[in-house]
Amino acid sequence: METGKEKEISRTLALFSDSEDKPIMEHEVTDLPSGPLDIYRKKASFNWKDMLLFIDGVEILAFKQYIFKTLENDPLFARLPGEDVSLEKKRELTFLRVKQLFRYNFLTNEEAMANPWKAAVFNECLCMYDCSMATKYGLDKGMFGRTVASSGSKRHNKYVESTENMMTFGCFALTELSHGSNTRAMRTTATYDPSSQEFIINSPDIEAAKFWVGNLGKTATHALVFAQLYTADKVCHGLHSFIVPVRDPKTLLALPGVLTGDIGKKLGQNGLDNGFVMFHNVRIPRENLLNKTGDVTPDGQYVTPFKDPNKRFGASLGALSGGRVAITRNAMVVLKMALVVALRFSATRRQFGPKDSEEIPVLEYQLQQWRLIPYLAAAYALEHFSKSFFMNYVEFQIGQMMSDKGDRQAELGREIHAIACSSKPLSSWTTQRGIQECREACGGHGYLAMNRLGELRDDNDPNCTYEGDNNVLLQQTSSYLLKWLQVKHHDGVRIKSPLHSVDFLDDFHRILESKFTATTIEQCMDAEVPLAAYKWLVCFLLGESLKRVEQQKASSKDMFDAINTSQVYYCRSLSIAYIEHCCLQRFHEQVTDEETPASLRPVLSKLCALYGLWSLSNYMVTLYQGNYFSGKRPTELVQTAILTLCSQLKDDAIALVDVLAPTDFILHSPIGNTDGQLYKNLWSTVMNNRQVLDRPSWWKEFCSDKPVVGSLRPKL
Amino acid sequence: METGKEKEISRTLALFSDSEDKPIMEHEVTDLPSGPLDIYRKKASFNWKDMLLFIDGVEILAFKQYIFKTLENDPLFARLPGEDVSLEKKRELTFLRVKQLFRYNFLTNEEAMANPWKAAVFNECLCMYDCSMATKYGLDKGMFGRTVASSGSKRHNKYVESTENMMTFGCFALTELSHGSNTRAMRTTATYDPSSQEFIINSPDIEAAKFWVGNLGKTATHALVFAQLYTADKVCHGLHSFIVPVRDPKTLLALPGVLTGDIGKKLGQNGLDNGFVMFHNVRIPRENLLNKTGDVTPDGQYVTPFKDPNKRFGASLGALSGGRVAITRNAMVVLKMALVVALRFSATRRQFGPKDSEEIPVLEYQLQQWRLIPYLAAAYALEHFSKSFFMNYVEFQIGQMMSDKGDRQAELGREIHAIACSSKPLSSWTTQRGIQECREACGGHGYLAMNRLGELRDDNDPNCTYEGDNNVLLQQTSSYLLKWLQVKHHDGVRIKSPLHSVDFLDDFHRILESKFTATTIEQCMDAEVPLAAYKWLVCFLLGESLKRVEQQKASSKDMFDAINTSQVYYCRSLSIAYIEHCCLQRFHEQVTDEETPASLRPVLSKLCALYGLWSLSNYMVTLYQGNYFSGKRPTELVQTAILTLCSQLKDDAIALVDVLAPTDFILHSPIGNTDGQLYKNLWSTVMNNRQVLDRPSWWKEFCSDKPVVGSLRPKL
Repeated sequence: METGKEKEISRTLALFSDSEDKPIMEHEVTDLPSGPLDIYRKKASFNWKDMLLFIDGVEILAFKQYIFKTLENDPLFARLPGEDVSLEKKRELTFLRVKQLFRYNFLTNEEAMANPWKAAVFNECLCMYDCSMATKYGLDKGMFGRTVASSGSKRHNKYVESTENMMTFGCFALTELSHGSNTRAMRTTATYDPSSQEFIINSPDIEAAKFWVGNLGKTATHALVFAQLYTADKVCHGLHSFIVPVRDPKTLLALPGVLTGDIGKKLGQNGLDNGFVMFHNVRIPRENLLNKTGDVTPDGQYVTPFKDPNKRFGASLGALSGGRVAITRNAMVVLKMALVVALRFSATRRQFGPKDSEEIPVLEYQLQQWRLIPYLAAAYALEHFSKSFFMNYVEFQIGQMMSDKGDRQAELGREIHAIACSSKPLSSWTTQRGIQECREACGGHGYLAMNRLGELRDDNDPNCTYEGDNNVLLQQTSSYLLKWLQVKHHDGVRIKSPLHSVDFLDDFHRILESKFTATTIEQCMDAEVPLAAYKWLVCFLLGESLKRVEQQKASSKDMFDAINTSQVYYCRSLSIAYIEHCCLQRFHEQVTDEETPASLRPVLSKLCALYGLWSLSNYMVTLYQGNYFSGKRPTELVQTAILTLCSQLKDDAIALVDVLAPTDFILHSPIGNTDGQLYKNLWSTVMNNRQVLDRPSWWKEFCSDKPVVGSLRPKL
Repeated sequence: METGKEKEISRTLALFSDSEDKPIMEHEVTDLPSGPLDIYRKKASFNWKDMLLFIDGVEILAFKQYIFKTLENDPLFARLPGEDVSLEKKRELTFLRVKQLFRYNFLTNEEAMANPWKAAVFNECLCMYDCSMATKYGLDKGMFGRTVASSGSKRHNKYVESTENMMTFGCFALTELSHGSNTRAMRTTATYDPSSQEFIINSPDIEAAKFWVGNLGKTATHALVFAQLYTADKVCHGLHSFIVPVRDPKTLLALPGVLTGDIGKKLGQNGLDNGFVMFHNVRIPRENLLNKTGDVTPDGQYVTPFKDPNKRFGASLGALSGGRVAITRNAMVVLKMALVVALRFSATRRQFGPKDSEEIPVLEYQLQQWRLIPYLAAAYALEHFSKSFFMNYVEFQIGQMMSDKGDRQAELGREIHAIACSSKPLSSWTTQRGIQECREACGGHGYLAMNRLGELRDDNDPNCTYEGDNNVLLQQTSSYLLKWLQVKHHDGVRIKSPLHSVDFLDDFHRILESKFTATTIEQCMDAEVPLAAYKWLVCFLLGESLKRVEQQKASSKDMFDAINTSQVYYCRSLSIAYIEHCCLQRFHEQVTDEETPASLRPVLSKLCALYGLWSLSNYMVTLYQGNYFSGKRPTELVQTAILTLCSQLKDDAIALVDVLAPTDFILHSPIGNTDGQLYKNLWSTVMNNRQVLDRPSWWKEFCSDKPVVGSLRPKL
């Protein structure tokens, strides 16, 4: 069955290279159309095709192009920029497109197992087309299907299979109307009835209704429901997950006892139908409990391989870490697209100039460079980080599948949790701010729906909230870091972690004695400078945070209060600084790796240094406060280095976004097209709007029924 | 005709007070419904009704309530939270509502003349209901009607009159597809033909099409078009404005030679129809030139009262300043509403707690306080600032109407321009960031369209762009400030301006020698501390900016380049610091004014100090860099003072937003209702959604037509 597809892929592959070992050949990637962007493209310091192949590699590049072209050639995926589509229609279209993805089956389960990175790339491609389509697909196949497979046992295989061929459609129901972050406080119950060997699923009141559940609004037939498991003796065994049928797959009508519907319009991702459900003593077979972490015997005994209920809870939520790893990348994908739009716009939009007669591209203005180019550097940093971190997560998952019970595996799990709990905030916030800057940097045209910056911003927004509110998650990271320091202080343990993200903390005291030593701008333009500063910063914030928590405890606060009053300026800043250091460190390793092509290293080094300095500049007060900086000079050096790097990178900016950009069809933004024909594309898109020149349907309301000024008296 | 309405107003007025001189009576403002918010309302340190009357006064309060109640009782203004309304329908509804406003005639021209503040309040009320309705109304009656009245002469009265009774509908056409900020580069031409005594209006190409024009998409019959005026001798006399009929008022069909239509969907404000127009040699009578700043005689001579074409240009654009004054307030109005929603939510949403058994409101968390309460302080600061600045602008306008040619009037014009060019950015950006924080602080529920935070954010967004891009406008403010310092340096002139916003600069050298002297947190919690720091900061940034510009010039750059490379870290920061100082200074004056009720001063003082310290904390690096701060202590003091103030203000936060809130009908956000019944309101709104429980119309697509996995081969 796959032969046709495979043939296509190899054909596309052949366009790029005969084999991966072959040296990179320039002519193998299609040239971009000539036009107003040529000026910048010609000024680039590197070959954009080399960069493209360096980042993606031949196979991934071919895979991406294959997906992009397939969608472009299928009329079901056609759309008009900025079109006004009703909520109902958006949901229908998204469902139909997801169904079509099943038909295309771009990546078989076997292929995904063999190369997990390809699964991430596949998701990235869907995200670039439409985030809500990617989410809808991922919630069904991943959050439902894969979670059932990993948290259940053989008896649940039928649900995995019926998801695979869309006989059923799944959703993941954890959040309740009144509880999100505090998962332990969920109030849906699953009470075991030994007489019928069934669980009775019940929502005690509207506040315990499952709410926000993606796919549940219109489509889901089965829900993976998290509920408090009660045995007949009224003992609560904590949160467990159950497969609960909610709609009849033959009719899509709700099943008896199930009140389910659509929670309505959201700020974005409206192709996805989020829903609610209330259960009125719905009975499900005993076997529907996903029993990996705990089971109930037919006669009603609770049995679990875990002794500590806290550990069981942790293990059952462990399955959620993957979501944060994925969001770290998804958010960055959205940022990339916004940058393509804003930078191509900035290179073609001209406004003012040294003489009245000739205007210059707005990208030539230092202010515009400073607003956008650091985000471009951040996108390159996060592109590498999110990929390498994904591979770490794959390693962890393999360990889980092999039931690795070793110390390293456990430690890896903790470190990945700490990184994911801060990398999701870093990526989603950087993207949120970056897109807003892109929107404003495109002026009014950025405010036109057709140019897609609004959609990108709105679609990224939930990344800040779901899978854990960013601010709440950051506390997980800081407590991981605090524990390391405490253990070192008390037990003299060496600080060393599987991914080495905390290893430098072992030098805590020595690092805290270091100072900013750069004396020239040239020195500052090396990522070593911000890296060293970040090491100091993380140590300083860690030390201060620990002190703060201890002070708060000492001033007769309980631990809950002590932690809560140590977030602002302390633990929260610590977590963000830690993840930025981590991201910068990995970027720096990539840049200095000898396998990185020499021709690309100069531009990557600049991006790396810029990302480091620009991120660091949020903490300069702390650097002064802790005496790492003193006097006027360090700030001057950092600021001048940032501006110099922006100015050096502006001629590379278009080539750099050409590397990040999907095809024009996927990007779907007239002002961001590869041909750079800003006004022609914008104008023709306006003209292609439906009814663009029509008078309004309500014209008589203006022409005939004139208002008599002051004729109406209010009814009060 | 007005009697009925006036009677209603006096009746509403009577509810509050018999006369303005009467002391404030508590029972005269309606109590708020009892519910979960009582806990905080009871803890408030002040009487919210006193604050309400202090800020608005009896007459304005009655006027607001009168408008709010009238809209609530008129079914045309009914709406469902989060409803999915099509673009076409939104535009129709907004038009019909604007027409209804003509019928209600809430404020006659005479009333507005007698009390201009009431006109601003009226606009605020419309904005609170729906920004795009307020904009649509304002563009027709204000930007078209009032600009015609002020830039034209008696011969244009008929257009003002036909706008007043909606026989015609106006729009203001300045921006072109390829030019926004650089107004001088507009390319639409108006060429005088003496043989027919007509102007020929022409758009040379699509890039010169008028674009983004509000009301032009569907409704406008007449456009106020800015075009380059050419006399028959081919001499260009610069940009002038002309009344150009674009659609037949009898049919709403475009007139011959006019290609006009709708530019499509925007990120927000979609009730407003923004449009484009291209003119193909459209002929209009000579008299349609708005001739206040220049005219053409029947035989084709250009005559102007101005000798310097630059001054003429300045004068004709002077009419635009009012827009920025209005936006300064409009943006803040939107921020107020977002804060009402987020803070009422935070006081009723409970998550986690010291014990598992009892959860606490999220407002109790220091982090949540720190995220939201500084924006509440900013809203109070901007509430006062935008009102007092509006009154300054009224004073200026009166001078203009009286043809005041004195030095003070000219100087007042320059100062108002400098303030407006920075207060619009301050207010729109504070609002942008504040709403985003409010959205995230409400978690997932903030992402539901029904709760309105998305609409508020989207509707505010263009405030950052129209009437001048924020970043571009800030350059106007810094050049005003730089000129003052240059004049002082060169000519020893005393720095003193009509509104005193720059007077302190006269102490430039003495201020630069000052240092941060507070030693306790209590001292820091007084607005005097940030005020003194801001004075130092503005002087420091001004001095550094001047040096920077001169260095850049010296390094062989032309003036255009020198200015452009002095924006980031210098001029741009200077402008923002200046306006923040200005806003803080006025707030401080209000707080310390002896007419401010003593019972309100403590809470206002805290808000003022918090606003000052929180804003200042963005510049702490500069304070260290310039040695105003040294060592660890100042940062610690400022940060601790901020957290202490947040914590002290959290019990006042609900009463403070009760003061800012419109009625529930106007606020239109279930999680922000006065009754605080968060989940009941949310749930019932979901249940009131259309088709909430219906299966999707496309159910057969799921139930019957199952996809065969892998069956589709892409067409490549």
